[in-house]
Amino acid sequence: MDPKSWRGPALRRQSTQPAAQAAVACRQRSPRAPWHCPREERASGETQPCRPAGCIKPDGAGQPEPEPFPGEAGRGSGVPSQYGLSVFLAGLLLMFAWAVHAAGLHKSHLLSYLITLMLVQLLWMLWYICRSYTQRRLIQEKDTHAGARWLRGITLFAVITLILDSFKIGYFIGFSNCLSATEGIFPVTHAVHTLLQVYFLWCHAKDIIQSFKTLERFGVIHSVFTNLLLWTNGVLTESKHQLNEHKERLITLGFGNITIVLDDHAPQCNCSTTTLCSIFSQGIYYLYPFNIEYHILASTMLYVLWKNIGRKVEHHQQHKIPFKFHGITIGTIFGLTVLTSTIAIVVVYLIQIGRSKIKSELALTMFYIYAISVLTLMCTAGIVALLIYRLENRSLDNSKNPARKLDADLLVGTASGSWLLSWGSILAIICAQDHPKYTWYNLPYSILVIIEKYIQNLFIIESIHREQEKVNDDIKTLRIVTISRENTLSLTPSFKEIYNGTVDADSGELPYLFNGNVCVRESSSNGGLEEDRSQVFSPVIHSTSDFSLYSSNSVANNKRRILKNIAAFLFLCNLSLWIPPAFGCRPVYDNGLEEIVFGFEPWIIVVNLAMPFSIFYRMHSAASLFEVSCKT
Amino acid sequence: MDPKSWRGPALRRQSTQPAAQAAVACRQRSPRAPWHCPREERASGETQPCRPAGCIKPDGAGQPEPEPFPGEAGRGSGVPSQYGLSVFLAGLLLMFAWAVHAAGLHKSHLLSYLITLMLVQLLWMLWYICRSYTQRRLIQEKDTHAGARWLRGITLFAVITLILDSFKIGYFIGFSNCLSATEGIFPVTHAVHTLLQVYFLWCHAKDIIQSFKTLERFGVIHSVFTNLLLWTNGVLTESKHQLNEHKERLITLGFGNITIVLDDHAPQCNCSTTTLCSIFSQGIYYLYPFNIEYHILASTMLYVLWKNIGRKVEHHQQHKIPFKFHGITIGTIFGLTVLTSTIAIVVVYLIQIGRSKIKSELALTMFYIYAISVLTLMCTAGIVALLIYRLENRSLDNSKNPARKLDADLLVGTASGSWLLSWGSILAIICAQDHPKYTWYNLPYSILVIIEKYIQNLFIIESIHREQEKVNDDIKTLRIVTISRENTLSLTPSFKEIYNGTVDADSGELPYLFNGNVCVRESSSNGGLEEDRSQVFSPVIHSTSDFSLYSSNSVANNKRRILKNIAAFLFLCNLSLWIPPAFGCRPVYDNGLEEIVFGFEPWIIVVNLAMPFSIFYRMHSAASLFEVSCKT
Repeated sequence: MDPKSWRGPALRRQSTQPAAQAAVACRQRSPRAPWHCPREERASGETQPCRPAGCIKPDGAGQPEPEPFPGEAGRGSGVPSQYGLSVFLAGLLLMFAWAVHAAGLHKSHLLSYLITLMLVQLLWMLWYICRSYTQRRLIQEKDTHAGARWLRGITLFAVITLILDSFKIGYFIGFSNCLSATEGIFPVTHAVHTLLQVYFLWCHAKDIIQSFKTLERFGVIHSVFTNLLLWTNGVLTESKHQLNEHKERLITLGFGNITIVLDDHAPQCNCSTTTLCSIFSQGIYYLYPFNIEYHILASTMLYVLWKNIGRKVEHHQQHKIPFKFHGITIGTIFGLTVLTSTIAIVVVYLIQIGRSKIKSELALTMFYIYAISVLTLMCTAGIVALLIYRLENRSLDNSKNPARKLDADLLVGTASGSWLLSWGSILAIICAQDHPKYTWYNLPYSILVIIEKYIQNLFIIESIHREQEKVNDDIKTLRIVTISRENTLSLTPSFKEIYNGTVDADSGELPYLFNGNVCVRESSSNGGLEEDRSQVFSPVIHSTSDFSLYSSNSVANNKRRILKNIAAFLFLCNLSLWIPPAFGCRPVYDNGLEEIVFGFEPWIIVVNLAMPFSIFYRMHSAASLFEVSCKT
Repeated sequence: MDPKSWRGPALRRQSTQPAAQAAVACRQRSPRAPWHCPREERASGETQPCRPAGCIKPDGAGQPEPEPFPGEAGRGSGVPSQYGLSVFLAGLLLMFAWAVHAAGLHKSHLLSYLITLMLVQLLWMLWYICRSYTQRRLIQEKDTHAGARWLRGITLFAVITLILDSFKIGYFIGFSNCLSATEGIFPVTHAVHTLLQVYFLWCHAKDIIQSFKTLERFGVIHSVFTNLLLWTNGVLTESKHQLNEHKERLITLGFGNITIVLDDHAPQCNCSTTTLCSIFSQGIYYLYPFNIEYHILASTMLYVLWKNIGRKVEHHQQHKIPFKFHGITIGTIFGLTVLTSTIAIVVVYLIQIGRSKIKSELALTMFYIYAISVLTLMCTAGIVALLIYRLENRSLDNSKNPARKLDADLLVGTASGSWLLSWGSILAIICAQDHPKYTWYNLPYSILVIIEKYIQNLFIIESIHREQEKVNDDIKTLRIVTISRENTLSLTPSFKEIYNGTVDADSGELPYLFNGNVCVRESSSNGGLEEDRSQVFSPVIHSTSDFSLYSSNSVANNKRRILKNIAAFLFLCNLSLWIPPAFGCRPVYDNGLEEIVFGFEPWIIVVNLAMPFSIFYRMHSAASLFEVSCKT
C-alpha cells in the first residue's frame, strides 16, 4: 500500500506527507509522543491553534491534548477590536465636530489627537521591530499574498507624502505668528511616522504573528485605525477644499440665490514670505490625493496583518512573477493613449469650468463624451475577458486567504460609493423638470459607470481566484509528455521529479521549455482531463491528434495574450479615471442637476461621503489589475 | 464504476469514518471506485464543494476527479451580491430623496419600488418552497446554529407587524380621497409578504443550500436587501416622527430662534371617520418599533442563509436545550424589577418632557440617575461574569460558523452606533461653554454606556464560543466514573457506549444522573485533564481526593448558577433599555447640549444615523443573552 497515492485536500501542491501517513504515524508513535498534528488540520486555514484533537491515544483513553493557547484566538480578538473602534469613532466625531464648526472645538484639538495616535503607533512599531530582531523564532511564517504588489505603490505615495509634509512645515513657518504649535508639530510627526511605517510595512507586512500577545493585537489594530483616521482627515481637508472651489465657481456664475458661505480656514495673519506661502498652499492640494491613497493602502495592508494573526497558512509558496512588458504592447498603447488624453481633458476641464455658463457647459459635454467612450471601451474589454473565462470554464481556487478576500470585498464595497452617486444622477435626470442639453449625456455616463464597475469587479474577482493554473499546467505537461513518449505509462526519474513538485516550487518556466518540444496541450481543465484519459487508453486516437494539440496550445496562448492585454489596458484606464475626481474634475458638483433636484446641502453630503470611496476604488482596482496582468 | 461509491457534498451526514480509515479505504478500493471524499476535507468548513481532487487513481496516472461544480462558489458569489447591493443603493437613494423632499419625487414612487421588491421576493419564496417539496434530496443539511432562538421573537414581531399593516389599511380607507393607491397596496402586499416570509423562515432558515443555482443565490440576496430596505424605510418613518415630536416640544419650550420646520406628511383631506383615523395614526407609531425589529431580524436570518450556501458543516449536533426558569430566580427578579421601573420611568418621562423647562429638566435628571444606576449594575454583573470565565480558563470553540460570527460582528458593529452618540455627548460636555446642572449627569451616563457595551460584548462573545462544555463534561464524567470503579482502565460495554457518543447525541441529562452517584469533577478543562491523567496512574492520590472532587463540583455548579443568573439579568436589562429609545424617550434630543455645540442639523443627522443601530443593539444583545442563559 503506497501512502503517496492518496493526496490530502490541502496538500495538492508539493506536500510529501499525505494524510494517511500522518494518521498512521499518529497510531504508530510511542506513548511518549502520542499526539501528532496532522498536516491537514494545520493547513485548514482556521484561526485555531493546531490541536491534535483528532488523534486518539493508542491506549484508548482518548484524552485530547490541551491547546497551546487555550482559546486565545476567540477570546483575544474582542478586546483590541473594540478598542480600535472606540479610537476611530472618537476621532471621527472630532473631525465631524471640526467640520461643522462645533462651538469650543479648534483644529488644534483634532491635530493633538492625531499626533497622540501617531506617537503611540510609532512607539509600538519600534517595540515590534526590536522584538522581532531579538526573538526571530516567533515569526517564522509569512503570507506571500499580503500586499506584495502594493509595497512599491505605497513607497511612491509615501515619498510624495513626505514632500507634502515639508510643504506643510514651510507653510507653518510662513504663518507661524498666527498658527497654533500643533500645526507645526503635526507634519513633523507625520513625516517620522511615514518613514517608520513604510520601513515597517516592507519588513513586516507579510508576518503571520503566532504568539497571542495582547500588545501585538492592540498595536496592529491601533495602526489600522490610526491610518484610517489619517485617511479620513485627508479626505475631509480635500473635500472642504473642493467644496470651496465649487462654491467660488457658483459665485462666479452668478448663482447668488443659493446661500453660499465659504468654509475657509485661512490664517488670520500675513505670511512672512508671500510667494513661498502661496506655492505651498497651492501645492498642498495637488499632493493631497497621493497622501490619501497612501493612508488607505497602508491601513488595508495593516488590516491584512491583523487578519493574519494566528492564521495557519497553506504552504504553496507563491511564485514571484516579475512584471514583463513583453506581450502586452497593444493593451499598453491603448491604455497610455487613454491616460494622456485623460490628463489633457482634465486640464482643459479645470481651465474652462466656472469661467462662464457656456464654457462650463462645453467643458461638461466634453468630459461626458470622453468618459462615455472610455467606459464603453472598458466594458467591451471586460466582456471579452469574461467570455474567455466562461469558455475556459476552469475551476477556481477557493481556499481561505485574508488578503484576497479583502481585495474582493474592497472592490465591491468601494464601488458602492460610485454606484450611489450614479443612481443619484439617474434619479435626478428622471425627476428633473427641465433638462439642459448637456445633462442628457449624464444618463449614459452614469449607467455606464455602474455597468463598467460591475463587469470589472467580476473580471478581477475571477482572475484573482485563478491561481491553480500552474499546477494544472504542470500536470498536463507531464501527461502529454507521457503520451508523446509512445504511450508508455512508466515515468523516467526526471519526469517523476517534475511531477513531485520540483518544477512547481523552483521555476515556473519549465512548462514553457516543454512548449516548444512536445506540444503542451492547454485546453480547459475538465474537458482536457477527460480527453487525456481517453487518450491514455486509446493510443490510436492519440497518434492522429498531434496537430490538434498544437493548435489547441496556440489558441490557449492567444487567449492568455488577450487576457494580459485586457488587464494592462484596464489597469491604465483605471489609473486614468482616478485622476479626474482626485484632482478636482467632479461633474457631480458642476452638473447642477442633482443639486437642483436633491437640494444643495443634501447632495453635497452624499457626494462628500461617497466620493472618497469612489476615488479609492479606481486606485485599488488598478493595483488589482496590475497583479492580474502579471499573473495571467 | 459505481457512482454511489463517491460521496458528494450533500451526503456528509451519515459518515462516521475517520481520516486514516478514509485514506486507507481510498487506497484499498477497487479501481472501479477509486475516489472517496476524506473527512478532513468535509469538515474543514471551506465553501468549496467536496471534491476528491486529492484522491489519485491507484494506477499511477494521477488524474484528479473533475469538480462537480467547477469553482462555482467563487465565481457565483460576485454577481448576486453586486445585484443585491445595487438594489439596496437605489432604494436608499429613493428614500434619501424622499426624506430631503427632492423635487419631482413622491412617496408613491418609493412605495412602488418597495412593492415591486416584495412581489419579486414573494415569487421567489413560492418557487423555493415548491422546489424544496418536489426535490427534497437537494437540501438535506441544516445549520442548527442558524437563528434557532430568534424564530419565536420574529414571529411575535411579525404578528405585531400584521396589526400595524391593518392599521395602515384602515388609515388608508379613512383618507382614501387624497391618498395615492400605492398607500393602500403597500400594507396589503406587506401583510402577505410578512406571512409568507415567516413561514419561509420557520421551514427554511436553517437550510444549507448545496446546489449552486444562480436563481437561489439571487433570491436569497434579494430577500436580504429587501428586508434591509424595509427596515430602513421603517427607521426613516420613525425618525421623522420622533424629530417632529422633538420640534413640537422645542416650539412649546419657546425655542423659536431655531429654524424649525415641521416635516409633516399629513394627508390634505379630512378623514371619513375621524376617531378611528386618529387611533390608527397614533397607534401606528407605537407599533413601528416592532416592525423595525422584525425586518432587521429577518434580514440577519436570511443573511445567515446566504452565508451558508455551499458550506460544509462540522457535525457536532447541537443539543436542543429548552429554556428552564429553574435556577435563575434571583437574576429574573432583579431583571423584572428593572423592566417594570423602566416602563414607569419612560411613561413619566414622556408625560413630563416638553411641558415646561423645569419639568423637562426634572424628567432628564430622573432618567439619567435611573439609567446610571441600571448601567452600573449591568457593568458589575458583566465584570463578575468575565472574572468567573477568566478563573475557569477553559478553551474556546473557534470553529467556523457563519451564524456565530455574524452574532459577534453585529454586536460590535451595532454598538458603534451608540458609542458614536456617547462620544458626541462627552465631547459636547467638554466643549460646552455653560453647563446647566442636569447636563452633568450626562457625562457619567455616556461613559457608562460605552463601558457597559464593551463589557457585555466581551461576555457574550466569550459565552457563545463556549459550546464544547457538554462534550468535555461527558468525557470528564466518564473518566471519573472509570477512576471510581476501583481504578480499572477497562470499560464496561455500557460506558463504552456512552463514550462513543450516545450520551452526546441523545440526551444531555445522563451526566447529571451520574452527578449524584459518583461525584463528577468539573474543574477547568486543561488543569482537570492533567490531574485526571495523573490520577489514573496514581491510585493512592485518587482515593484521598474524593472530597475535593465533590467540593470542586459544587463550586463549579455555583459558578454556573451565577453565570445563568447574570445572563438572565442582563437579558431583561437589555430588553428594558430597548424600550426608551424605541418609544421616543431620547435624551440625546432633549438634553440640548449637543445641539448647541454641534449645531441643530448636524447633531440631528448624527442621531438619526446612529440611533437605529443603537436600538437594534439592545434587541440583538437580548436575543444573544437569552441564548447564553439557556446554554450555560
